Amino acid sequence: MITFDRVKPLTKYLFQQKVAHKTIGLVPTMGALHQGHFSLIAASQKQNDITVCSIYVNPTQFNQISDLKKYPRNLAEDKTKLRSLGCDVLFCPSDQEMYPQPTELKFDFGSLASHMEGKHRPGHFNGVATVVAKLFNQVKPDRAYFGQKDLQQYVIIQQMVRDLGFSLTLQQVPIIRETDGLALSSRNQRLTRKQRQVAPQLYQGLKLAAMQMKEGAGIPKARRKVRDHMKKFREIELEYFQIVNADNLHPINGCENNKVALCMAAYLGKVRLIDNLIIIC
Amino acid sequence: MITFDRVKPLTKYLFQQKVAHKTIGLVPTMGALHQGHFSLIAASQKQNDITVCSIYVNPTQFNQISDLKKYPRNLAEDKTKLRSLGCDVLFCPSDQEMYPQPTELKFDFGSLASHMEGKHRPGHFNGVATVVAKLFNQVKPDRAYFGQKDLQQYVIIQQMVRDLGFSLTLQQVPIIRETDGLALSSRNQRLTRKQRQVAPQLYQGLKLAAMQMKEGAGIPKARRKVRDHMKKFREIELEYFQIVNADNLHPINGCENNKVALCMAAYLGKVRLIDNLIIIC
Repeated sequence: MITFDRVKPLTKYLFQQKVAHKTIGLVPTMGALHQGHFSLIAASQKQNDITVCSIYVNPTQFNQISDLKKYPRNLAEDKTKLRSLGCDVLFCPSDQEMYPQPTELKFDFGSLASHMEGKHRPGHFNGVATVVAKLFNQVKPDRAYFGQKDLQQYVIIQQMVRDLGFSLTLQQVPIIRETDGLALSSRNQRLTRKQRQVAPQLYQGLKLAAMQMKEGAGIPKARRKVRDHMKKFREIELEYFQIVNADNLHPINGCENNKVALCMAAYLGKVRLIDNLIIIC
Repeated sequence: MITFDRVKPLTKYLFQQKVAHKTIGLVPTMGALHQGHFSLIAASQKQNDITVCSIYVNPTQFNQISDLKKYPRNLAEDKTKLRSLGCDVLFCPSDQEMYPQPTELKFDFGSLASHMEGKHRPGHFNGVATVVAKLFNQVKPDRAYFGQKDLQQYVIIQQMVRDLGFSLTLQQVPIIRETDGLALSSRNQRLTRKQRQVAPQLYQGLKLAAMQMKEGAGIPKARRKVRDHMKKFREIELEYFQIVNADNLHPINGCENNKVALCMAAYLGKVRLIDNLIIIC
């Protein structure tokens, strides 16, 4: 594995690979790698000659300084993992390299970014889109891999790729879960033992809603059931539970034979977790 | 000259050129080519192996339908001119090719786009930035060429390139003027004979301001002098005259040994013209 911390040598190296007709897959991460990330790496390795993993805890997408500070970092361990997975290139730039000057431009994603994560994490998607645009311009991948767990992020990046004409294909990779159903997340490390025990209830709540929807319950009823369920666990503070069109995340009134996304965010103490489930109903 | 009207074959062709280590210069235009454009082409030819000229009247940057409709178009003549200049590649896509679906993402350039052109042409720079980002992603040039006449456009594109990390160099090419001082513009074609006679007064106004500034007059006095001068010509309706920092277009209070841009927009009948002059004072 070749490691770069500067943009220019990375771009130069990857250009040489392109000249040699190698295809490039990009897996953007913030490190603290787990099986969820590994599945992105594996998906990229399957489809591309060269897999580039970026590790960069992007400050501009954190709307809370405390969350940024507490975000788990373990570059040495991450490197060992990536090497053992056969990742070809690691890009781990400094803040100075990624943001040589403060960003002035902002993205406006309209209604797409005004609910769920966009509503509860103001500025988050602007930071995500900015850093992802930078990575796309630096790596110039043929394909880029994102997890379904950050569903709204995926749809927003898809919009950016479409609207700005980035010549690459986005790939969404399914959520990886612990055996008890908890969606893998670097933030899970920060849960206490008690919080970790109840954390799978996010997924249980989503499954409950899915069952309700499949049995023909309307959206209000499904939402109520989930809220009631989550209230049983005093360690969990539900932030939102939304039922939306899975392709464009627009609110829906009913099923209409669509792909529907059930999306949830909740606090366990100071740790904020998200999860989602996509169903056909 | 090779002409493309589709993105994919263009991108494929240019990739082959890159593989052969050719450098690529991009000259984005809206056609109705004149000496101003030719100087951009010449600048690109001097610095690059391959010069790509794009001709696309971008609907999303017109804030008035009538201006879009009346914008001069003459592709056949443009092609002849480009061929005679030795331009290597012409890219003239359709609306369908550039905007297969409506754009949802918007750029917010903050204060940079809230005065001068940004104020008087709402949405203009969002449309410009969107189409330029698309062209950058399609052509992937080493260098891109823009005229100084659209000074605010240049600064905004510079911001976008910096903030999103496009790996290319922007080049600004000086304004080309008629012998009587009128800055070349495709819109000049639409002037009546009488309007054409007084149109050089925009430049005269700018020169008057420059003289005032160099003689130590404050900004308010220079502005007043120019306004008074422009009022003498009843065919001209001054829209704005601003004195700003030439690098970032921030309003300035005085000279302070800076590069200062004198920027003007005016209507001659229904034709809107812009001009600027950069001075050290």
